[in-house]
Amino acid sequence: MKIYFAASIRGGRSDVKIYQKLIDFLNQDNQVLTEHIGNDNLSVTSQSQTDDKYIRDRDINWLKETDLVVAETSNPSLGVGYELGYAERLHKPVVILHNSTKSQLSAMINGTDYFKDIFEYQTVDEAIEILKNYRGIQN
Amino acid sequence: MKIYFAASIRGGRSDVKIYQKLIDFLNQDNQVLTEHIGNDNLSVTSQSQTDDKYIRDRDINWLKETDLVVAETSNPSLGVGYELGYAERLHKPVVILHNSTKSQLSAMINGTDYFKDIFEYQTVDEAIEILKNYRGIQN
Repeated sequence: MKIYFAASIRGGRSDVKIYQKLIDFLNQDNQVLTEHIGNDNLSVTSQSQTDDKYIRDRDINWLKETDLVVAETSNPSLGVGYELGYAERLHKPVVILHNSTKSQLSAMINGTDYFKDIFEYQTVDEAIEILKNYRGIQN
Repeated sequence: MKIYFAASIRGGRSDVKIYQKLIDFLNQDNQVLTEHIGNDNLSVTSQSQTDDKYIRDRDINWLKETDLVVAETSNPSLGVGYELGYAERLHKPVVILHNSTKSQLSAMINGTDYFKDIFEYQTVDEAIEILKNYRGIQN
Protein backbone atom coordinates (compact mmCIF):
# COMPACT_ATOMS: atom_id res chain seq x y z
CA MET A 1 0.00 0.00 0.00
CA LYS A 2 0.98 3.63 -0.42
CA ILE A 3 1.80 5.52 2.77
CA TYR A 4 2.13 9.27 3.22
CA PHE A 5 4.54 9.80 6.11
CA ALA A 6 4.14 13.28 7.62
CA ALA A 7 6.66 14.85 9.98
CA SER A 8 8.33 18.16 10.71
CA ILE A 9 10.62 19.68 8.09
CA ARG A 10 10.95 23.45 8.63
CA GLY A 11 9.43 23.10 12.13
CA GLY A 12 12.69 21.42 13.19
CA ARG A 13 14.74 18.35 12.24
CA SER A 14 15.90 17.11 15.62
CA ASP A 15 13.93 13.84 15.21
CA VAL A 16 15.05 13.02 11.66
CA LYS A 17 16.72 9.76 12.71
CA ILE A 18 13.43 8.58 14.21
CA TYR A 19 11.60 9.48 10.98
CA GLN A 20 14.19 7.52 8.99
CA LYS A 21 13.72 4.38 11.08
CA LEU A 22 9.93 4.56 10.85
CA ILE A 23 10.12 5.09 7.07
CA ASP A 24 12.58 2.20 6.68
CA PHE A 25 10.18 -0.07 8.56
CA LEU A 26 7.15 1.05 6.54
CA ASN A 27 9.06 0.72 3.25
CA GLN A 28 9.72 -2.99 3.88
CA ASP A 29 6.23 -4.00 2.76
CA ASN A 30 4.77 -0.71 1.52
CA GLN A 31 5.68 2.31 -0.54
CA VAL A 32 6.35 5.48 1.44
CA LEU A 33 5.61 8.34 -0.94
CA THR A 34 7.36 10.96 1.21
CA GLU A 35 10.56 9.08 2.04
CA HIS A 36 12.65 12.25 1.58
CA ILE A 37 11.37 13.32 5.03
CA GLY A 38 13.81 10.83 6.57
CA ASN A 39 16.75 12.19 4.61
CA ASP A 40 19.22 13.81 6.96
CA ASN A 41 20.55 16.00 4.13
CA LEU A 42 17.16 17.27 2.99
CA SER A 43 17.34 20.99 2.30
CA VAL A 44 14.74 22.60 4.52
CA THR A 45 15.16 26.16 3.30
CA SER A 46 13.04 27.55 0.54
CA GLN A 47 14.59 28.95 -2.59
CA SER A 48 11.42 30.71 -3.74
CA GLN A 49 7.66 30.80 -3.53
CA THR A 50 7.61 28.83 -6.80
CA ASP A 51 9.57 26.03 -5.13
CA ASP A 52 7.14 26.02 -2.21
CA LYS A 53 4.19 25.80 -4.59
CA TYR A 54 5.86 22.84 -6.31
CA ILE A 55 6.41 21.09 -2.94
CA ARG A 56 2.88 21.80 -1.74
CA ASP A 57 1.18 20.66 -4.94
CA ARG A 58 3.32 17.49 -5.12
CA ASP A 59 2.53 16.66 -1.48
CA ILE A 60 -1.21 17.27 -1.92
CA ASN A 61 -1.18 14.97 -4.96
CA TRP A 62 0.55 12.29 -2.87
CA LEU A 63 -2.06 12.78 -0.13
CA LYS A 64 -4.81 12.25 -2.71
CA GLU A 65 -3.29 8.98 -3.95
CA THR A 66 -2.19 7.56 -0.60
CA ASP A 67 -3.90 4.66 1.17
CA LEU A 68 -2.83 5.75 4.64
CA VAL A 69 -1.27 8.71 6.43
CA VAL A 70 1.25 8.09 9.24
CA ALA A 71 2.09 11.31 11.10
CA GLU A 72 4.83 11.80 13.67
CA THR A 73 3.68 14.83 15.70
CA SER A 74 6.17 15.22 18.57
CA ASN A 75 7.85 18.21 16.92
CA PRO A 76 5.29 21.01 16.38
CA SER A 77 4.89 21.74 12.66
CA LEU A 78 2.56 23.94 10.62
CA GLY A 79 2.91 21.61 7.64
CA VAL A 80 1.93 18.47 9.57
CA GLY A 81 -1.09 20.28 11.04
CA TYR A 82 -2.13 21.35 7.55
CA GLU A 83 -1.59 17.83 6.17
CA LEU A 84 -3.64 16.26 8.97
CA GLY A 85 -6.51 18.62 8.21
CA TYR A 86 -6.23 17.81 4.51
CA ALA A 87 -6.20 14.07 5.23
CA GLU A 88 -9.40 14.51 7.27
CA ARG A 89 -10.95 16.45 4.37
CA LEU A 90 -10.05 13.60 1.97
CA HIS A 91 -11.27 10.94 4.47
CA LYS A 92 -7.88 9.19 4.44
CA PRO A 93 -7.09 6.80 7.31
CA VAL A 94 -4.64 8.48 9.71
CA VAL A 95 -2.25 7.03 12.31
CA ILE A 96 -0.66 9.56 14.68
CA LEU A 97 2.49 8.70 16.63
CA HIS A 98 3.29 11.07 19.47
CA ASN A 99 6.00 11.16 22.12
CA SER A 100 4.50 13.19 24.96
CA THR A 101 7.84 13.47 26.74
CA LYS A 102 8.78 15.89 23.91
CA SER A 103 5.60 17.95 23.61
CA GLN A 104 1.91 17.81 24.33
CA LEU A 105 -0.22 17.08 21.29
CA SER A 106 -2.29 20.02 20.02
CA ALA A 107 -5.88 20.15 21.26
CA MET A 108 -6.94 20.81 17.66
CA ILE A 109 -5.58 17.39 16.71
CA ASN A 110 -6.23 15.41 19.91
CA GLY A 111 -9.76 16.83 20.14
CA THR A 112 -10.78 15.97 16.57
CA ASP A 113 -13.02 12.89 16.49
CA TYR A 114 -11.71 11.95 13.06
CA PHE A 115 -8.23 11.30 14.51
CA LYS A 116 -9.11 8.21 16.53
CA ASP A 117 -5.83 6.32 16.03
CA ILE A 118 -3.48 8.41 18.17
CA PHE A 119 -0.71 6.39 19.81
CA GLU A 120 1.77 7.42 22.48
CA TYR A 121 5.30 6.06 22.24
CA GLN A 122 8.69 6.78 23.74
CA THR A 123 11.21 4.63 21.86
CA VAL A 124 11.45 3.91 18.14
CA ASP A 125 11.00 0.20 18.91
CA GLU A 126 7.69 1.01 20.62
CA ALA A 127 6.59 3.08 17.63
CA ILE A 128 7.46 0.24 15.22
CA GLU A 129 5.55 -2.21 17.43
CA ILE A 130 2.51 0.08 17.24
CA LEU A 131 2.76 0.16 13.44
CA LYS A 132 3.19 -3.65 13.31
CA ASN A 133 0.01 -4.11 15.33
CA TYR A 134 -2.01 -1.56 13.38
CA ARG A 135 -4.52 -3.49 11.30
CA GLY A 136 -4.50 -0.99 8.46
CA ILE A 137 -0.81 -1.50 7.60
CA GLN A 138 0.55 -4.37 5.51
CA ASN A 139 3.32 -6.35 7.18
CA MET B 1 -16.01 42.37 12.45
CA LYS B 2 -15.21 39.07 14.09
CA ILE B 3 -11.57 37.96 13.94
CA TYR B 4 -10.15 34.52 14.67
CA PHE B 5 -6.58 35.07 15.86
CA ALA B 6 -4.51 31.89 15.47
CA ALA B 7 -1.14 31.36 17.13
CA SER B 8 0.89 28.71 18.90
CA ILE B 9 -0.36 27.38 22.23
CA ARG B 10 1.14 23.94 22.92
CA GLY B 11 3.72 24.50 20.17
CA GLY B 12 5.40 27.05 22.45
CA ARG B 13 4.48 30.30 24.18
CA SER B 14 7.66 32.33 23.74
CA ASP B 15 5.84 34.92 21.59
CA VAL B 16 2.79 35.38 23.81
CA LYS B 17 3.54 39.08 24.41
CA ILE B 18 3.50 39.67 20.65
CA TYR B 19 0.17 37.85 20.35
CA GLN B 20 -1.24 40.02 23.16
CA LYS B 21 -0.24 43.25 21.42
CA LEU B 22 -1.70 42.15 18.09
CA ILE B 23 -4.94 41.06 19.79
CA ASP B 24 -5.16 44.36 21.70
CA PHE B 25 -4.80 46.26 18.44
CA LEU B 26 -7.40 44.14 16.64
CA ASN B 27 -9.83 44.39 19.58
CA GLN B 28 -9.91 48.19 19.34
CA ASP B 29 -12.36 48.13 16.43
CA ASN B 30 -13.20 44.45 16.09
CA GLN B 31 -14.03 41.42 18.21
CA VAL B 32 -11.24 38.88 18.58
CA LEU B 33 -12.97 35.57 19.27
CA THR B 34 -9.80 33.84 20.48
CA GLU B 35 -8.41 36.55 22.76
CA HIS B 36 -7.36 33.93 25.34
CA ILE B 37 -4.40 33.16 23.04
CA GLY B 38 -2.78 36.36 24.26
CA ASN B 39 -3.25 35.45 27.92
CA ASP B 40 0.13 34.88 29.55
CA ASN B 41 -1.48 32.64 32.18
CA LEU B 42 -3.36 30.42 29.74
CA SER B 43 -3.05 26.80 30.78
CA VAL B 44 -1.51 25.01 27.83
CA THR B 45 -1.64 21.50 29.26
CA SER B 46 -4.54 19.21 28.59
CA GLN B 47 -6.51 17.73 31.44
CA SER B 48 -8.22 15.11 29.27
CA GLN B 49 -9.27 14.15 25.78
CA THR B 50 -12.74 15.50 26.66
CA ASP B 51 -11.22 18.92 27.35
CA ASP B 52 -9.39 18.80 24.03
CA LYS B 53 -12.61 17.93 22.21
CA TYR B 54 -14.32 20.89 23.91
CA ILE B 55 -11.48 23.24 22.84
CA ARG B 56 -11.42 21.91 19.27
CA ASP B 57 -15.18 22.08 18.78
CA ARG B 58 -15.37 25.59 20.27
CA ASP B 59 -12.53 26.79 18.02
CA ILE B 60 -14.05 25.24 14.89
CA ASN B 61 -17.36 26.95 15.70
CA TRP B 62 -15.50 30.27 16.05
CA LEU B 63 -13.79 29.61 12.70
CA LYS B 64 -17.19 29.05 11.11
CA GLU B 65 -18.59 32.34 12.41
CA THR B 66 -15.50 34.51 11.92
CA ASP B 67 -15.17 37.17 9.21
CA LEU B 68 -11.38 36.94 9.04
CA VAL B 69 -8.52 34.76 10.26
CA VAL B 70 -5.26 36.42 11.38
CA ALA B 71 -2.52 33.83 11.97
CA GLU B 72 0.87 34.45 13.56
CA THR B 73 3.05 31.61 12.24
CA SER B 74 6.60 32.29 13.47
CA ASN B 75 6.38 29.55 16.11
CA PRO B 76 5.68 26.18 14.43
CA SER B 77 2.34 24.79 15.60
CA LEU B 78 0.23 21.79 14.61
CA GLY B 79 -2.93 23.61 15.70
CA VAL B 80 -2.25 26.70 13.57
CA GLY B 81 -1.50 24.49 10.54
CA TYR B 82 -4.77 22.64 11.11
CA GLU B 83 -6.69 25.91 11.55
CA LEU B 84 -5.21 27.39 8.37
CA GLY B 85 -6.31 24.31 6.43
CA TYR B 86 -9.77 24.56 7.97
CA ALA B 87 -10.01 28.27 7.10
CA GLU B 88 -9.13 27.41 3.48
CA ARG B 89 -11.82 24.71 3.50
CA LEU B 90 -14.39 27.28 4.77
CA HIS B 91 -13.17 29.93 2.27
CA LYS B 92 -12.47 32.41 5.08
CA PRO B 93 -10.16 35.34 4.33
CA VAL B 94 -6.74 34.71 5.91
CA VAL B 95 -3.91 37.09 6.85
CA ILE B 96 -0.61 35.44 7.79
CA LEU B 97 2.03 37.34 9.79
CA HIS B 98 5.45 35.72 9.82
CA ASN B 99 8.79 36.72 11.29
CA SER B 100 11.35 34.87 9.19
CA THR B 101 14.18 35.70 11.59
CA LYS B 102 12.51 33.13 13.92
CA SER B 103 11.64 30.35 11.46
CA GLN B 104 11.01 29.74 7.81
CA LEU B 105 7.34 29.43 6.90
CA SER B 106 6.20 25.90 5.99
CA ALA B 107 6.14 25.13 2.26
CA MET B 108 2.67 23.65 2.77
CA ILE B 109 1.43 27.10 3.81
CA ASN B 110 3.66 29.36 1.69
CA GLY B 111 3.02 27.19 -1.37
CA THR B 112 -0.79 27.18 -1.08
CA ASP B 113 -2.35 29.60 -3.59
CA TYR B 114 -5.27 30.25 -1.24
CA PHE B 115 -2.92 31.94 1.26
CA LYS B 116 -2.11 35.01 -0.80
CA ASP B 117 -1.91 37.52 2.06
CA ILE B 118 1.35 36.44 3.71
CA PHE B 119 3.28 39.30 5.29
CA GLU B 120 6.79 39.34 6.69
CA TYR B 121 7.44 41.46 9.79
CA GLN B 122 10.15 41.82 12.40
CA THR B 123 8.78 44.18 15.07
CA VAL B 124 5.29 44.30 16.59
CA ASP B 125 4.96 47.87 15.28
CA GLU B 126 5.59 46.59 11.76
CA ALA B 127 2.98 43.87 12.23
CA ILE B 128 0.41 46.39 13.46
CA GLU B 129 1.19 48.64 10.50
CA ILE B 130 0.53 45.69 8.16
CA LEU B 131 -2.83 45.07 9.85
CA LYS B 132 -3.70 48.78 9.66
CA ASN B 133 -3.06 48.79 5.93
CA TYR B 134 -4.92 45.55 5.26
CA ARG B 135 -8.11 46.48 3.45
CA GLY B 136 -10.08 43.61 4.94
CA ILE B 137 -9.74 44.85 8.56
CA GLN B 138 -11.89 47.56 10.12
CA ASN B 139 -9.89 50.38 11.71
